[in-house]
Amino acid sequence: MASHAAPHAPLRHPHTGEASAPPGAPSASRGATATLARCRALVEPALREAVRALHPQPGLVAAHAFGWCAADGTPGDGDGGKGVRPALALLGAEAVGAEPEAAVPAAVAIELIHTFSLIHDDIMDGDERRRHRDSAWKAFGTGPAILAGDALFALAVRTLAERGGPAAGAAVRELSVMLGELVHGQADDVQFESRPWSGPGAVGLAEYRAMALRKTGALLGCATALGSVLAGAPPRLTAALDQAGRQWGLAFQAVDDVLGIWGDPDVTGKPVHGDLRRGKKTLPVLGATAAAPTIGPRIERLLSGDGPLDEACVRHAADLVEEAGGRAYALREARTRVSAARDQLRALPLTGPRVDELVALSELFLDRRV
Amino acid sequence: MASHAAPHAPLRHPHTGEASAPPGAPSASRGATATLARCRALVEPALREAVRALHPQPGLVAAHAFGWCAADGTPGDGDGGKGVRPALALLGAEAVGAEPEAAVPAAVAIELIHTFSLIHDDIMDGDERRRHRDSAWKAFGTGPAILAGDALFALAVRTLAERGGPAAGAAVRELSVMLGELVHGQADDVQFESRPWSGPGAVGLAEYRAMALRKTGALLGCATALGSVLAGAPPRLTAALDQAGRQWGLAFQAVDDVLGIWGDPDVTGKPVHGDLRRGKKTLPVLGATAAAPTIGPRIERLLSGDGPLDEACVRHAADLVEEAGGRAYALREARTRVSAARDQLRALPLTGPRVDELVALSELFLDRRV
Repeated sequence: MASHAAPHAPLRHPHTGEASAPPGAPSASRGATATLARCRALVEPALREAVRALHPQPGLVAAHAFGWCAADGTPGDGDGGKGVRPALALLGAEAVGAEPEAAVPAAVAIELIHTFSLIHDDIMDGDERRRHRDSAWKAFGTGPAILAGDALFALAVRTLAERGGPAAGAAVRELSVMLGELVHGQADDVQFESRPWSGPGAVGLAEYRAMALRKTGALLGCATALGSVLAGAPPRLTAALDQAGRQWGLAFQAVDDVLGIWGDPDVTGKPVHGDLRRGKKTLPVLGATAAAPTIGPRIERLLSGDGPLDEACVRHAADLVEEAGGRAYALREARTRVSAARDQLRALPLTGPRVDELVALSELFLDRRV
Repeated sequence: MASHAAPHAPLRHPHTGEASAPPGAPSASRGATATLARCRALVEPALREAVRALHPQPGLVAAHAFGWCAADGTPGDGDGGKGVRPALALLGAEAVGAEPEAAVPAAVAIELIHTFSLIHDDIMDGDERRRHRDSAWKAFGTGPAILAGDALFALAVRTLAERGGPAAGAAVRELSVMLGELVHGQADDVQFESRPWSGPGAVGLAEYRAMALRKTGALLGCATALGSVLAGAPPRLTAALDQAGRQWGLAFQAVDDVLGIWGDPDVTGKPVHGDLRRGKKTLPVLGATAAAPTIGPRIERLLSGDGPLDEACVRHAADLVEEAGGRAYALREARTRVSAARDQLRALPLTGPRVDELVALSELFLDRRV
């Protein structure tokens, strides 16, 4: 019934083939690619310099996570992610009229924190694959992965505190608040897995959104604001950039949830239906069960069985979630959030020339895994 | 030949019964106990308030680690450690003439970081016991323990950044440099375990001390300096306090190494001979093998066998290390470091009334596990 893998177009509708990205996506995407390349050229040398200061052992784990080398240290051009978060930090600074160079320590700190959280979350979630290769704990062991995450965390704080210039204090405060939210959101997400799908103690949509705002929104909000904080922008503007970033976080999480059920493993680097198999409470399922009074309870019964779900059961649940509109619900949420953030940004007195780039970049959140 | 456990007097010489603490130790120890109680009364309410802001799940893991409750959440007065590090932060501030209250955010941040590092290190080292109860990963699982450590790390940075007052920026810089050293030292320590006892690649005494300075000295140095940094003391004084704390760190590590071989499990909460059994490179062994040309190679051969050492073998190795003077070597090192720090402090233009308390407290490093 539903397509279980849609190579290279993870968000195309499985029946109509209609793209869920807005009509202008291809050219927006080309523009975003150029933006990412420009930002990467500014950030990567500083990131590599920061990572060089680490002890060689956590330094190797980090370099592997960034895609700079294989697990045995052989240099290589692995997939280190698109670098959207550091780009947001530079574009946020440019949007308030600052030079992007002023935001480089913020961009480096954000990328270090992002990678720290991937490394630690992969241990907690038991995820063996990340960016089409072994996750850090799988490649190096749990202990070295914990330590490498800690090293990146410490390096992020140090980079911002030492290189952030006159506004470093304010930037570290922003970062530290975000870090608390990030951990809180991860704790919620883990705890949700063991909560029931229905009845008392079930996870509701509002609770899910609060979790996603912390787990994913806080980091994207901080990324978007932190460069402008370092550039000395007024708090009203930095707070508005943070809010826009949080909307993108909710959009990102909604798309990530769709990919966690229907994403092509060749594209996502993760097993199809993975989130259903481990009882993760995700937006498509919560949206489906809340909206469909008939199918909802069937989905809940399917997912509530004791022990691991077999493949047929998981596939059937995915089909029911789609039939009940859960996939469409999550994609609609993503589009709504990206539109809202765009409107919020357009309403701000942003003087810099890069606001369009910021908006174009945010459309990537709809288009693919970033 | 050697005593394998010396209850309640871990540093008494096993043959002569001679106490290794200086003659004034009992009264110094009484004074230190009063100092610790005074500091705890100032720090603990702020620490509890900070921890209350955590998500309940990592909050429970943290409360258990601090000794505030059992693993099921039942309130209790468990062993939360003596609180030497936060006390050093308050005394350091008082030594430069400031009120201790100004240093409370520093003391809280230091205690949070100390606990973060215990929780993560126990996972990496596979230590199942801590302060006479299950370590965090043993009680709650690896994932929750990782996340609780991350939560405490983030909370430490936030506490200092938000509550540190005008010198918060400088204090966060100090803290972040220390965090990098802490991780670097832990990486060294872990890596040393898989390096040989002799021949090419063997760990030498200088390398051991560099590791201990990072792993243990950096946190004690930062603890001693950080309160004075928040109090706005001149960098020359804060740096000198940091140096004194680092000497105490080397003393602490030397005593910890002695306890790791000969400590009474009832006192240390860890198995006797534990460090030998897992190939940890510790000061008594390195001191023994460097100083004893005849016994040294026998110790190295005993410890270099493939696979886990049996109990008789470990006991024999411990006896040989003692016979070669390794235990005495480590205790001499500890005494020398504490004396050197005392002399350094006495030579400083410290105006506050609490320098004697600081010195008295440091003698605890010789007397017992802190």
